Amino acid sequence: MKAEIITSGTELLLGEVTDVNTPFLAGQLAALGIDLYYSSTVGDNFRRFSGVLRQAWERSDLVIITGGLGPTQGDITREVIAGMLGEKTRVDADLKKEVEAFFSRRGLEMPENNIKQATVIPSAVALHNAAGTAPGWWVEKEGRIIVTMPGPPAEMQEMWHRHVLPRLREKSGAVILSRTLKTWGLSEGKVDELVTPYLGSANPTLALYARPDGINLRITAKAATEAEAGAMLAAREGEVREILKHHVWGADAATLEGVVGKLLCDRKLSLAVSESLTGGRLSSTLSGTPEVAGCFKGGIVLTTDASGVGNENAAAMARSARLQFGADIGLAIAGFYHDDPGAPRGSAFIAVDMEKESRSAEAPGLPGRVPLRISRTINHALIYLRDFIESLPA
Amino acid sequence: MKAEIITSGTELLLGEVTDVNTPFLAGQLAALGIDLYYSSTVGDNFRRFSGVLRQAWERSDLVIITGGLGPTQGDITREVIAGMLGEKTRVDADLKKEVEAFFSRRGLEMPENNIKQATVIPSAVALHNAAGTAPGWWVEKEGRIIVTMPGPPAEMQEMWHRHVLPRLREKSGAVILSRTLKTWGLSEGKVDELVTPYLGSANPTLALYARPDGINLRITAKAATEAEAGAMLAAREGEVREILKHHVWGADAATLEGVVGKLLCDRKLSLAVSESLTGGRLSSTLSGTPEVAGCFKGGIVLTTDASGVGNENAAAMARSARLQFGADIGLAIAGFYHDDPGAPRGSAFIAVDMEKESRSAEAPGLPGRVPLRISRTINHALIYLRDFIESLPA
Repeated sequence: MKAEIITSGTELLLGEVTDVNTPFLAGQLAALGIDLYYSSTVGDNFRRFSGVLRQAWERSDLVIITGGLGPTQGDITREVIAGMLGEKTRVDADLKKEVEAFFSRRGLEMPENNIKQATVIPSAVALHNAAGTAPGWWVEKEGRIIVTMPGPPAEMQEMWHRHVLPRLREKSGAVILSRTLKTWGLSEGKVDELVTPYLGSANPTLALYARPDGINLRITAKAATEAEAGAMLAAREGEVREILKHHVWGADAATLEGVVGKLLCDRKLSLAVSESLTGGRLSSTLSGTPEVAGCFKGGIVLTTDASGVGNENAAAMARSARLQFGADIGLAIAGFYHDDPGAPRGSAFIAVDMEKESRSAEAPGLPGRVPLRISRTINHALIYLRDFIESLPA
Repeated sequence: MKAEIITSGTELLLGEVTDVNTPFLAGQLAALGIDLYYSSTVGDNFRRFSGVLRQAWERSDLVIITGGLGPTQGDITREVIAGMLGEKTRVDADLKKEVEAFFSRRGLEMPENNIKQATVIPSAVALHNAAGTAPGWWVEKEGRIIVTMPGPPAEMQEMWHRHVLPRLREKSGAVILSRTLKTWGLSEGKVDELVTPYLGSANPTLALYARPDGINLRITAKAATEAEAGAMLAAREGEVREILKHHVWGADAATLEGVVGKLLCDRKLSLAVSESLTGGRLSSTLSGTPEVAGCFKGGIVLTTDASGVGNENAAAMARSARLQFGADIGLAIAGFYHDDPGAPRGSAFIAVDMEKESRSAEAPGLPGRVPLRISRTINHALIYLRDFIESLPA
């Protein structure tokens, strides 16, 4: 199946909004094994939009459109599709009730121009919008498909997962499942070398991606049934985990702070932190992590002048944070924030401190620009903390 | 002039990379008064890329391409342009020296496949890449223009500002200058109302944008000479500033933390902070701001449990941070980080503390999701600090 994406909206062509729908949809299509050959953006102009849609319709089996489903005169996606297919729009009574209900739940009357959101064409099935007033359309005609969804990413993604993805899975006649394993502490080249035997496999496939949170491995299995695909996926995951062992710290949507935070709370340990190089980013990462709520007691942010740099400084910072906040564990990152020309590039020291034990170490070389170095140092500190907790007697 | 953007690269169609070049270029073209009607993305496939380029060439006066200028076999932008125009590529001796010099500065020999980066066609002028090995091309033929630039956003933007923008300005035969004034503390509707007389003006134009750092006003003036456009811009800026007064906190690339940090350092005042609601984001914002380096002494991050919420708590936090770090001023933000159902939505208190004076206030209602509320609260605290410093005897 050959797919094509059209994002519509003059605001995109004025640079006022960054299109995040295309990368989302592109990733989803890739995971489904559907080839995406083109994507394009067009403004709210009937003639140009119609031209882009006609071309897509002629060269692709599946056209996915986002945007242009609002109630204003500039929202023309429905009219463009109807015009291209030579069909007439009509108001659907059930859809009209849905749109009216959306407003009445908010104690409002439906503005008259919202009526266009309740229209369909004969080839279209409306897709319910759980997060807004604009229903999408699933259009099937002459063996080809047009899907149109609202532009706001949250509405679009909700509709995609609930209504579009299941239909596409059914069309493809196969179940495709994928799982992403996340690693830390190995270079892309090393991971590549270790899993070489599996990289050539056609099903399940295995692909590597370098990400700020480490090297990710995506396993994708395709089979006739969900059970079969799931079993293939699980088997390959087991083999890959066996090779990479504790370098795998999580899977899929897991975050390193979430994984380490959960470990901490499960062990009923509380944490305080002190940081210089990372300037508050470690604290703000932990504050924003639900898994660590209640176990994170607080943080101190120092400037490098005040903290110094080295194993001893880091250890003193960790201890001092632990004592100031009355936590079980203190974790510290000491280092240079700015690209200080006088400093050895990327010096960073990590320390953990408990009443009866403390450890510290220099973090490995930190390549990249400052923001990337900071996020890598935080990941390194979190892994250091994980290993420390796991080494404690249960 | 009708423009069109083509971004090339299979990674874009796999959803592995988000295209940030299109919004950047779209915004730049809008500021130049050049109409952008289409943008599209195509993979590293000669036939499909050639088709997209031919269509763009036929319907647009200016085609801007990013990506596909690397040394690999998948990098085909030069070949696609040459093929479409029916021209032959040849190695340019000067370009070859430039690419070789890039490698020799790093103590490396140029790999053989990088030679393609030193090629041009008769209609092309090479554009120097100050940040990488891939030169761009400026192609003029039959009254139309193709510009091709590297895909990495930093390289592309550098080349755009240095080589493409000046050429396009010259082509347009007019000088367009713009300036963005940044405000805080007024709603979009209020700003709109206050500057209504200027919103209808055709030259200079005035446009409003709601941004996380407040309502921005972009003034754009068009004239035959730079001096004339500059004078028009300055006059309108003066009129707008006269209306909005101290609500305007900066212009163009200025950041609120930079503006307030500079004020602080200019007055030779040092700062320490304490924060609960914002969980470390205030500290990390200040740590990453060059203007405040040397004046920012450190920060404390508390959980809401430990800090409580209210004017008194905020004042105590500000004082305690000031004393712990020996700073001239303490600044505190106290409030709820999570969407705590038991708490009044978005309660936040700001306090500043000096030896002889302290002030605190409840921050105004904070709409939006948690990350947006956090950034708004930080902006509010920075404005509060600015007003405090400005009220001090000089």
